[in-house]
Amino acid sequence: MSVRNGRQFLSIPGPTTVPDEVLAAMHRPAVDIRKGELVNVTARLKDDLRMISKSNGTPFIYIANGHGAWEAALSNVLSRNEKVLVLESGSFAAGWGQSGGTIGLDVEVLPGNWRKAVDPDAVEARLKADKSGDIKAVLVVQVDTASSVFNDIPAIRRAIDNAGHDALLMVDTIASLGTMDYRMDEWGVDVTVAACQKGLMMSPGVSFTIANKKAMARHQNANLRTAYWDWTSRQGAEHYQNYAGTPPVHMLFGLQKAFEIIREEGLNQIFTRHQLLAGATRAAVEKWSEQGEFAFNITEPKERANSVTTVLVSNEENLGPIHDYCSEKCGVVVGVGIAALSGKALRIAHMGHINAPMLLGTLSSIEMSLKALKIPHGTGGTQAAIEYLAANVPQ
Amino acid sequence: MSVRNGRQFLSIPGPTTVPDEVLAAMHRPAVDIRKGELVNVTARLKDDLRMISKSNGTPFIYIANGHGAWEAALSNVLSRNEKVLVLESGSFAAGWGQSGGTIGLDVEVLPGNWRKAVDPDAVEARLKADKSGDIKAVLVVQVDTASSVFNDIPAIRRAIDNAGHDALLMVDTIASLGTMDYRMDEWGVDVTVAACQKGLMMSPGVSFTIANKKAMARHQNANLRTAYWDWTSRQGAEHYQNYAGTPPVHMLFGLQKAFEIIREEGLNQIFTRHQLLAGATRAAVEKWSEQGEFAFNITEPKERANSVTTVLVSNEENLGPIHDYCSEKCGVVVGVGIAALSGKALRIAHMGHINAPMLLGTLSSIEMSLKALKIPHGTGGTQAAIEYLAANVPQ
Amino acid sequence: MSVRNGRQFLSIPGPTTVPDEVLAAMHRPAVDIRKGELVNVTARLKDDLRMISKSNGTPFIYIANGHGAWEAALSNVLSRNEKVLVLESGSFAAGWGQSGGTIGLDVEVLPGNWRKAVDPDAVEARLKADKSGDIKAVLVVQVDTASSVFNDIPAIRRAIDNAGHDALLMVDTIASLGTMDYRMDEWGVDVTVAACQKGLMMSPGVSFTIANKKAMARHQNANLRTAYWDWTSRQGAEHYQNYAGTPPVHMLFGLQKAFEIIREEGLNQIFTRHQLLAGATRAAVEKWSEQGEFAFNITEPKERANSVTTVLVSNEENLGPIHDYCSEKCGVVVGVGIAALSGKALRIAHMGHINAPMLLGTLSSIEMSLKALKIPHGTGGTQAAIEYLAANVPQ
Amino acid sequence: MSVRNGRQFLSIPGPTTVPDEVLAAMHRPAVDIRKGELVNVTARLKDDLRMISKSNGTPFIYIANGHGAWEAALSNVLSRNEKVLVLESGSFAAGWGQSGGTIGLDVEVLPGNWRKAVDPDAVEARLKADKSGDIKAVLVVQVDTASSVFNDIPAIRRAIDNAGHDALLMVDTIASLGTMDYRMDEWGVDVTVAACQKGLMMSPGVSFTIANKKAMARHQNANLRTAYWDWTSRQGAEHYQNYAGTPPVHMLFGLQKAFEIIREEGLNQIFTRHQLLAGATRAAVEKWSEQGEFAFNITEPKERANSVTTVLVSNEENLGPIHDYCSEKCGVVVGVGIAALSGKALRIAHMGHINAPMLLGTLSSIEMSLKALKIPHGTGGTQAAIEYLAANVPQ
Repeated sequence: MSVRNGRQFLSIPGPTTVPDEVLAAMHRPAVDIRKGELVNVTARLKDDLRMISKSNGTPFIYIANGHGAWEAALSNVLSRNEKVLVLESGSFAAGWGQSGGTIGLDVEVLPGNWRKAVDPDAVEARLKADKSGDIKAVLVVQVDTASSVFNDIPAIRRAIDNAGHDALLMVDTIASLGTMDYRMDEWGVDVTVAACQKGLMMSPGVSFTIANKKAMARHQNANLRTAYWDWTSRQGAEHYQNYAGTPPVHMLFGLQKAFEIIREEGLNQIFTRHQLLAGATRAAVEKWSEQGEFAFNITEPKERANSVTTVLVSNEENLGPIHDYCSEKCGVVVGVGIAALSGKALRIAHMGHINAPMLLGTLSSIEMSLKALKIPHGTGGTQAAIEYLAANVPQ
Repeated sequence: MSVRNGRQFLSIPGPTTVPDEVLAAMHRPAVDIRKGELVNVTARLKDDLRMISKSNGTPFIYIANGHGAWEAALSNVLSRNEKVLVLESGSFAAGWGQSGGTIGLDVEVLPGNWRKAVDPDAVEARLKADKSGDIKAVLVVQVDTASSVFNDIPAIRRAIDNAGHDALLMVDTIASLGTMDYRMDEWGVDVTVAACQKGLMMSPGVSFTIANKKAMARHQNANLRTAYWDWTSRQGAEHYQNYAGTPPVHMLFGLQKAFEIIREEGLNQIFTRHQLLAGATRAAVEKWSEQGEFAFNITEPKERANSVTTVLVSNEENLGPIHDYCSEKCGVVVGVGIAALSGKALRIAHMGHINAPMLLGTLSSIEMSLKALKIPHGTGGTQAAIEYLAANVPQ
Repeated sequence: MSVRNGRQFLSIPGPTTVPDEVLAAMHRPAVDIRKGELVNVTARLKDDLRMISKSNGTPFIYIANGHGAWEAALSNVLSRNEKVLVLESGSFAAGWGQSGGTIGLDVEVLPGNWRKAVDPDAVEARLKADKSGDIKAVLVVQVDTASSVFNDIPAIRRAIDNAGHDALLMVDTIASLGTMDYRMDEWGVDVTVAACQKGLMMSPGVSFTIANKKAMARHQNANLRTAYWDWTSRQGAEHYQNYAGTPPVHMLFGLQKAFEIIREEGLNQIFTRHQLLAGATRAAVEKWSEQGEFAFNITEPKERANSVTTVLVSNEENLGPIHDYCSEKCGVVVGVGIAALSGKALRIAHMGHINAPMLLGTLSSIEMSLKALKIPHGTGGTQAAIEYLAANVPQ
Repeated sequence: MSVRNGRQFLSIPGPTTVPDEVLAAMHRPAVDIRKGELVNVTARLKDDLRMISKSNGTPFIYIANGHGAWEAALSNVLSRNEKVLVLESGSFAAGWGQSGGTIGLDVEVLPGNWRKAVDPDAVEARLKADKSGDIKAVLVVQVDTASSVFNDIPAIRRAIDNAGHDALLMVDTIASLGTMDYRMDEWGVDVTVAACQKGLMMSPGVSFTIANKKAMARHQNANLRTAYWDWTSRQGAEHYQNYAGTPPVHMLFGLQKAFEIIREEGLNQIFTRHQLLAGATRAAVEKWSEQGEFAFNITEPKERANSVTTVLVSNEENLGPIHDYCSEKCGVVVGVGIAALSGKALRIAHMGHINAPMLLGTLSSIEMSLKALKIPHGTGGTQAAIEYLAANVPQ
């Protein structure tokens, strides 16, 4: 017996809920890939990528997930044995660095803390120490979906500038683009990495790099370039060259619709919505945490991401039952802790195609599980979230 | 600015949310209508209708909404100027009666109360007074979606039997079938009327009558029969005769899938789910009503339907803002009062394809609106609903 | 072993192939039925119906197939025992008349010939003989899908006028609307009956009546009106009244898309396309008929419909194998003969969403079957169709 | 004016027509990627890949097009500066080789002829000459979609064996898998490359490598491995490792359905269907070629592929008008010549989800264009195709 049958709620930090309109846009006959409609789709998607990254750089669309885009970004601007500095603040910047290791880069990790954002001062100090300019690129994520931290990209840019260092600033926005402000040009980011399945609300399978002029210049001498990832060949005259082969027809139609939805809502409204829903989630978690069973992974409130909230659980044996109750009894799939937090945390996603009833339905179901399972918690988390939204959503 | 963008929540008492699988089942090429797959679909749908009505009667599938099925039911068993007794308990039995008036029936309404169920004793008394047997049929709804009352069909059957009266018992289950128990044969119902767009979770456009042997016998002499509605011609050998012409191909595929979903969940589980979600809704409304601004339309708790809850609002000018806030700010469409309650009530639907997060998301959004709009209410309605479910959903 | 796997070709004269865009338009979440988008859809559909019928009359949209619309049309303008004159030219006008008989009309059939169009002179003669004006309406189809005849509606109008008769002219355009010219107002048609599943390319389940002022005036006194079909109540202020209850939400979205496709192609282009494809079909059938095994059912070339071609087969035992071969070996469902031509003919549909390769693929498959089954035929039917199109499609 | 409106026919050699059921399978809500249904989908897809390649090897599923899979295959078994021998027979083997050049391989092309299959004797001679065993892998395509040649893989295997050479045999089956027989294990292929968008009938975006034990052994020492393509990390315990990150959820659901369709039809029936449709195409082209305007690119009949036919055109200025006529007037997109044949040929695809009416509709439309444009051709090509099928499709 359950109250689960109805639409399943997916509260995992990616892939996120795909809007019905996006799924519908993918449900159409195949088309010619050499001319006609699809060629225009590619052109528009590049505009969309510039719009959402606030950049006049050059976008590239990969048939690949984010890990593929990591490899694409690195191989296009670096050469064998060059050093990159990875700014740790959870799982994903480190993962990106490891990926670089496999293609022949020298990877140095600036140690961070899973519960904190990257410290710009530490970045500045390390770069100042690199007198010989061995470090060719600095790798950082804007949001880490494992820790749910949010890093201050402009501050990191200033750190690099303060150090007078020439390294490329490469930012992974996979878990943040389309959920919070990002200004590639204004902030001086050289290479942006993104993917479609989080804030962009698309089914996974397409990812992106965007390069500014400095990155395009470095590209000329990079010796790690390969046919599939290569920026230069992807700028060829034939439409298929954009994709180094057959384009992912239906994925492109879906992505185009996702961007239409984004343009219709408007970036500022989208960012506000994410901020409000994140605030509501934090109000609930704050309340639930009163009994000591739960805690925010990110200790500093202003470093918490607007796309996902990682919640540490004192009694690890409670995690399985919470997930099972939400899933089996309510039809809500709550994110699990991963990497260093595997088995130690749950993650509540609040990004992409999500509104108040979806979030509040999710929080309600989690709170149902806590009560039904008699797990200690401050009661009234959902109530606090409702009150937060009622007070903060502009009339 | 809003927190609306995400999947819209439809909390209206019909048409209800259509499951994605049902929509998908309608998305396929047209097929031959004379033989092959579609012929089997019709046969299976008849089995499904017998299953869900717990009947061995003869089902008929109409391309029509419920109002069409009303006309179908009456015209197949009655003759011009015959009398029917309508048991009022809200809007819909009366509407059915008026429909009968237009085709030439003599319609008598047994007056009821919009805030109460039909009184079986009054039925018995009226039938006992009909010494000459003028009343040929008794018309009643199991649930009235306007008042949100639930009528006790077995008790009404007993009232007819106690009066020793021969009238047909005709029951409209449009707003109840697939949400609560219904036993056509065991309860002695002669004609069942149903439609696809509420508990059956299908897009509107198909409705049903089911006739037992007594009804089929009366049918032989009914002079209101017409080519489109006629049960006899619909029993012809050719497949198209089931539909008095071209079958509604895609609607049938959708309906078939809806019944597959129903069979997979199981009737008992479905009824329990509805009972639990209705209980949660009542817990919230009970709480909100503490300040006197809100009240259940149906005063007697055990007469409240499991599919929809009608909530009276003291300050009628609050209704528009609540609906607008839920819709514009949250993406939740809450049902309005209709007929006698137009402009005086809101209706929260909890039927069909709905689970805990969908309901709790809806209640949360309503509560958000009350707080944001500063409408007096007992705070913690959603919290009460969460607690109700946590306590009552079987582990 | 077959060469069937691929998209099935449906060459039956209704329901016809539903465009992918129309199916896609039906694949979306349910919406509110009282206000918002759906209300606009209804208004636009009425405009669409006026556009396609070239009329300023009043359109009504029924949840019903064409047989339902027949009943709707008759019941709204006639009273019990009034006489209607049915102009026979195949199966469907007669069927419409029989439908009228069941609701209490006095039905007279002007005998016709299954292989010819209605003779306007015979109509004029019969109406002149009706000195007392007993005949209240004349019923005719523009195209009969059984015989594949096309009737000359303006000529029939002139016949009525020549007789100085006041009967309503009621035209069933179910198998012609959207495939050939139709001018309700210019031609003086009083009531048009139509349905969605042929030239309108929509999945079956919605049908239409359109009434001019004369018909609306007659409506005032018609005593066969019933709640479900009634034009007056369907003109009520509430949106649901358009449908006498719950609107068929997804059907309306599909129909709206079908009309968008129609408007985009343009009526004149659509009519030309149908004429060309009909011409190609006739070229093939003409060729195949050279051996005497096949013959056009409609003997007079200018009376042949542009939407379907009925082909008589001398050796009836060849029909089953042809249908089976096309279906089992090629994946093409060819229409069967119905009513008087059941077991005596095959029908090739060429209406709605159909282009050159679809038609030529169908003709090719039929010709494959003739050769494989060694059925006598003039060889080169498909070749003749190709040549016809190459010569006649404007450059 | 045209006879185009209807379903567009896509007759390009990839991406091919995606079956409606496959598109429908992709139209569903996102799901959890860490456990549940999707994990089983991955397991089943690996079985499907083994089934269709007739191999017990280890399959890997890439989010990438075929060019990505090329890079995956090479990087997993080779090391920097190792030599590969590319067997030219059109465009694609050479392209694969060039891809290898970008990642650091030493690429030698065994010159071939665009109008002929690879000559096994030449392969044997070259390998015998490689006394030092410098050649580490032999790269060949089973079908080249540019030239439409079909290479004899077992003969090439024998050539390698006859030379007593230890090079890996790596076969690109992108344009052949699922259209003709392929026996990875029996034929001694070490690495198979495949993609989803041709014979597998799926929308492009997923590709594959399958490795036998010898290949897996070589993999251990290959130093070109990278995180994204690496076979070893893709065999990790976590589900996401199969995809080196987020799996392409909806693509996998679509692919699963495509394989269900394949299994239902059965490989032998599929191969026969392709052979028959290829035969019909050749019959038409043979006829059209009688006037000298057209010619098969592949001169030797037994070397012509069953999936696509490349047709050389003497008068190159006729190509544009033919393509335009087919597209604008008929709604048929015919493939263009590419690479060396760009502007010199048209390509008729007959692979994947295609049946007799689709192919014959395409051929008919091409023949319409030849007649309408007065391009010299032997008349009756379509007729010849019809006769070929009627004579050769088994009863």
